[in-house]
Amino acid sequence: MAGNSFGNIFRITTFGESHGLGIGVIIDGCPAGLEISEADIQLELDRRKPGQSKITTQRKEGDKVIIQSGVFEGKTLGTPISLYIANQDQKSKDYSHIKDVFRPSHADFTYQEKYGHRDYRGGGRSSARETACRVAAGAIAKKLLQHYGLKINAFVSSVYNLKLDIPFEELDFSQTEKNIVRCPDDATAQKMIDLIDKARKDGDSLGGTVSCFVENCPTGLGEPVFDKLEAELAKAMLSINAVKGFEIGSGFSGTKMKGSEHNDIFEVKANKIQTKTNYSGGIQGGISNGMPIYFNVAFKPTATIIQKQSTVNEKKEKLEMQGKGRHDPCVLPRAVPIVEAMTALVLIDYLLLNKLSKL
Amino acid sequence: MAGNSFGNIFRITTFGESHGLGIGVIIDGCPAGLEISEADIQLELDRRKPGQSKITTQRKEGDKVIIQSGVFEGKTLGTPISLYIANQDQKSKDYSHIKDVFRPSHADFTYQEKYGHRDYRGGGRSSARETACRVAAGAIAKKLLQHYGLKINAFVSSVYNLKLDIPFEELDFSQTEKNIVRCPDDATAQKMIDLIDKARKDGDSLGGTVSCFVENCPTGLGEPVFDKLEAELAKAMLSINAVKGFEIGSGFSGTKMKGSEHNDIFEVKANKIQTKTNYSGGIQGGISNGMPIYFNVAFKPTATIIQKQSTVNEKKEKLEMQGKGRHDPCVLPRAVPIVEAMTALVLIDYLLLNKLSKL
Amino acid sequence: MAGNSFGNIFRITTFGESHGLGIGVIIDGCPAGLEISEADIQLELDRRKPGQSKITTQRKEGDKVIIQSGVFEGKTLGTPISLYIANQDQKSKDYSHIKDVFRPSHADFTYQEKYGHRDYRGGGRSSARETACRVAAGAIAKKLLQHYGLKINAFVSSVYNLKLDIPFEELDFSQTEKNIVRCPDDATAQKMIDLIDKARKDGDSLGGTVSCFVENCPTGLGEPVFDKLEAELAKAMLSINAVKGFEIGSGFSGTKMKGSEHNDIFEVKANKIQTKTNYSGGIQGGISNGMPIYFNVAFKPTATIIQKQSTVNEKKEKLEMQGKGRHDPCVLPRAVPIVEAMTALVLIDYLLLNKLSKL
Amino acid sequence: MAGNSFGNIFRITTFGESHGLGIGVIIDGCPAGLEISEADIQLELDRRKPGQSKITTQRKEGDKVIIQSGVFEGKTLGTPISLYIANQDQKSKDYSHIKDVFRPSHADFTYQEKYGHRDYRGGGRSSARETACRVAAGAIAKKLLQHYGLKINAFVSSVYNLKLDIPFEELDFSQTEKNIVRCPDDATAQKMIDLIDKARKDGDSLGGTVSCFVENCPTGLGEPVFDKLEAELAKAMLSINAVKGFEIGSGFSGTKMKGSEHNDIFEVKANKIQTKTNYSGGIQGGISNGMPIYFNVAFKPTATIIQKQSTVNEKKEKLEMQGKGRHDPCVLPRAVPIVEAMTALVLIDYLLLNKLSKL
Repeated sequence: MAGNSFGNIFRITTFGESHGLGIGVIIDGCPAGLEISEADIQLELDRRKPGQSKITTQRKEGDKVIIQSGVFEGKTLGTPISLYIANQDQKSKDYSHIKDVFRPSHADFTYQEKYGHRDYRGGGRSSARETACRVAAGAIAKKLLQHYGLKINAFVSSVYNLKLDIPFEELDFSQTEKNIVRCPDDATAQKMIDLIDKARKDGDSLGGTVSCFVENCPTGLGEPVFDKLEAELAKAMLSINAVKGFEIGSGFSGTKMKGSEHNDIFEVKANKIQTKTNYSGGIQGGISNGMPIYFNVAFKPTATIIQKQSTVNEKKEKLEMQGKGRHDPCVLPRAVPIVEAMTALVLIDYLLLNKLSKL
Repeated sequence: MAGNSFGNIFRITTFGESHGLGIGVIIDGCPAGLEISEADIQLELDRRKPGQSKITTQRKEGDKVIIQSGVFEGKTLGTPISLYIANQDQKSKDYSHIKDVFRPSHADFTYQEKYGHRDYRGGGRSSARETACRVAAGAIAKKLLQHYGLKINAFVSSVYNLKLDIPFEELDFSQTEKNIVRCPDDATAQKMIDLIDKARKDGDSLGGTVSCFVENCPTGLGEPVFDKLEAELAKAMLSINAVKGFEIGSGFSGTKMKGSEHNDIFEVKANKIQTKTNYSGGIQGGISNGMPIYFNVAFKPTATIIQKQSTVNEKKEKLEMQGKGRHDPCVLPRAVPIVEAMTALVLIDYLLLNKLSKL
Repeated sequence: MAGNSFGNIFRITTFGESHGLGIGVIIDGCPAGLEISEADIQLELDRRKPGQSKITTQRKEGDKVIIQSGVFEGKTLGTPISLYIANQDQKSKDYSHIKDVFRPSHADFTYQEKYGHRDYRGGGRSSARETACRVAAGAIAKKLLQHYGLKINAFVSSVYNLKLDIPFEELDFSQTEKNIVRCPDDATAQKMIDLIDKARKDGDSLGGTVSCFVENCPTGLGEPVFDKLEAELAKAMLSINAVKGFEIGSGFSGTKMKGSEHNDIFEVKANKIQTKTNYSGGIQGGISNGMPIYFNVAFKPTATIIQKQSTVNEKKEKLEMQGKGRHDPCVLPRAVPIVEAMTALVLIDYLLLNKLSKL
Repeated sequence: MAGNSFGNIFRITTFGESHGLGIGVIIDGCPAGLEISEADIQLELDRRKPGQSKITTQRKEGDKVIIQSGVFEGKTLGTPISLYIANQDQKSKDYSHIKDVFRPSHADFTYQEKYGHRDYRGGGRSSARETACRVAAGAIAKKLLQHYGLKINAFVSSVYNLKLDIPFEELDFSQTEKNIVRCPDDATAQKMIDLIDKARKDGDSLGGTVSCFVENCPTGLGEPVFDKLEAELAKAMLSINAVKGFEIGSGFSGTKMKGSEHNDIFEVKANKIQTKTNYSGGIQGGISNGMPIYFNVAFKPTATIIQKQSTVNEKKEKLEMQGKGRHDPCVLPRAVPIVEAMTALVLIDYLLLNKLSKL
């Protein structure tokens, strides 16, 4: 109800403020018997953590995860899995200068309006720090999906006005982690890095898109009519901080096609019913059809910039504010594991649900 | 769980197959005391019904709604409201020719895979006929929202390669219903109608976008972190048949902006905190900030076309099929009330939830 | 949220006022492929309908059920199943005499307080007529449970001060339907009938208990810690009109035992782990252990009596009211199928959920 | 779904195994602005903790609670509140002797069946240690209820065959905490203590009943038809370890009354509509009527006894086991705060829900 849970069967609940004691996530509904370790989870968290490279924020946080419950002798118990990440030096800073100021395009104002007061330290609950919990839970979801053979590959497909112009099918996803921007084409990656580095030096920020490609998804995932697979993916993506758009398959460009061009013709290949084209993006009528699922996610440029900006405070006084210190000039490289995590959470939930769809 | 319900507090459940006895919707959680009549609901249904004009399907269905429960002496009782629409001549047709055929880009194949059998008559549950129930429930949601002063305006903003190129703020929404394509600019509307009419004659179909603009939304709607207002809107839109994309505020074009350009600067106007620009689309940190909410929804060209297409059947045999009879060359005009209904369902649910956010 | 739905996976939503157009139930989450007919459902409804015998209300209603959706060619589609029962002569009566009067121990006063107005015709939504929908949905749940081998037997175990004094294990449940009071021991049944008939003549009403015995329940049903199987059964039973108590296994009498007497000792029988005694009632730690599940449900005497009673009206004026016409002197015989239905709804929901508990 | 959450609006999720790192609870949906401190919560936890007196288990655990999130500057933020209790010396013990043994009337066997493996250390998740989390969350629920004026008083009303024979209305609840058994009548309390002490010396255990009396509950709480207030209370109580029965108002004894005796006659007192008698237990039609709510909860004698018992192990071998060390000869005194906590969780959830029932 209050928005801190996601999923039906495989259901997570996250908690914690950015500068409180710590953050964490409870996973309820993970089947018993899955092998999982803190190392499995840490691996994914390290892909999201700050301070990874020169193009992400220079803030250093270890984001060390602890499994507090739900795993015994290396395997899930079927009971709630609690993952906890203690915050580091959460008390050290002085926040008096932003205490009653509404930073532009942040959530300060809306939290104040909704709740009557707020944790002004680093955005509190509205900070993207919360997404570490999603990545942690997503690591377990991914392990379960591996058990069923699914593979999820997200990557940076555009930064600002620079777009990766290679069709998904021709990409080598083993290259994604080989550069700091997480774009599977190295030539494009280097240009993206330069763009971001320039923005960092200017104290500015850049947006872009993350794309995701899912292989080996079985047919049958998705619950019509409201819980169509693409609907839940859309919700999952739009729930990530800074996301402003989602398109699946042909997406917005498909609106400029005719039906006679856009329809995916069925054919039989290797004794399996497949489609010749895949404008549908692997989903028809809200249910996966066995073809690859792919979608794009739009991220706005991050709101934190190191430039002077005008704003107002709680007393409705106009003032100037100046961002300072470390910031993320472009969240996209760190968003890749978040997009993968949210995709994994949707897919495992729907895969489990689908086990109940027929006698 | 099984995907036929939507909403938390104001929660609807739809049922019914396209060619069964009828379709309907139960609304649970509508507060008691709201004045509502069958006429209020019929008004919205008539905007969605087939056979309205030369550019929609020529199929004629009255879509006459009955209130079966939950309303007494003209006012809601606080008990479930059941709305029912009987199907007309549902038995008359012969479906043997498509009984075991998978129509391209329809849900025939995925339903068969998921459920093991399916109602092959006109798509059964996967038919867009189900959206009539959403419009009916949405009519009640709209009435409640009126009580709180909100206004929802959806309209056709592009058809195929033709785009309405007037900023939202300059549009006169009173013009939307004045033409059969539901575009508030008459000059553009006439061109759209011509495009659609041409497609109809070709037996083809066209996609496009519906945009939605919400005025007078109070601050505080949206439940962080997973149930951000834009996340639920995205889900609501992607749950509509044929939708392939959603973008809010600056959307995909915002990915090509810098933070210093994109940030919405706060200012005080008429003693209210507002933003100078509105790239955020009225939502920050998942919560409405009082500015207008606007978003675009991408519809693919409808899958039903009156042309010969190749496909396969349940026995994995290749065959040719030929669509026949009446079809919707472009769903967009009829999608406008559906987008409004889904928007209303999200907003009323979140408005009610928000009453509980602080002491 | 608003209380008209029950179940997680196999989820039902009921609607309708006692004297409105009709009542109905939507079942969402029933697996596809189950054979079901209107006759299967009618069979159970006929066990609950009014006018069955001299000891139930003499009101005659056919309670004829229609399947409106979700079943095609005799089998469930996996889509929502809508069952509808039209009300008969719902307009014929004059209710002006009770319009603003609060009948003692009815829900008139509380509905008025909660909702601000109410359907005063025969109790509206608070009428036990709603339970017909539970019985209808329960008929489908029962069919599914049969598929898994479970058997549910409810019966009247006491009326007023007369108690059936035979241990569950010695009862022959094939006798339950052989008498009008639904007690499997004929000698006791006759005495119960006499008691009820006497109350009827006095214009009074009697309470009693319904007991339920479930055979062949597999191990593993129940979701600790809050959704223990007995917790959900308790909720299911207490949600039935007029129920004031629930006890499972040793129940209240078990509070007067010592642990050394009460513990159920495990033993191996027919190569299966079983317990020697079954004070636990087939559930341990909230999860079924494979032994028979049994419980008792307490029904208060019905509030409707044909005697003069003092009460107040909406204006807080004192007045006398006199019940008239047909009434149920004892709801227990008609409550038997309701208890079975609610038990079936809990068990099938938990059986489906349990399919997801381990890898 | 998986059973570790409770509540709709004010929703808690507990986690943790008895002998793992720790246990905890997330509260989602608590309104912002409530003053709460660790001391408020600790107060209630201390009433439940082991080692309080000679009649509870002698095991010593501090049960020291930490607020990890959701509270800032002394007030709730509207974000999830995470409460954590570290387990003490969780590694010190040797469990090899019970590793594969199914203790009689414990959850060892059913967890093994459901999940395929289990945490055998002290019962793992099935241990009543989990209820500490309910008490912690309940402390916050109680604080909110105080804000609305409600008062919840639970107490031990019987132990074994010894029953407190004073009507609820005549009890002085300020006496409940004055003795170690938590019975508000001191003379009865002393006899109960003697009974329990005797059982402890015998290595045996005793059952009994806890009763609960709620004052100042407003009208309107309860969501018909499935989520009747008494139904949710029943579920809440039956979800507590060792509970076997629940009865509200007249309960099982009401089944032996006639309608003419049992009906609660309305009257106007102090310009308020009330009932002369209160057999209904403060709830009619599933909705609170403003009269005191009262109910009884049956606890079986605890399964852990210090006596030799026969049982079987995972290999289906028969063996003798001997409980040892510290045990709770009677859980009732420590169950009192648990019953209060679960009552508070139900009432605050329904009180919040009820704010949405009418325009």
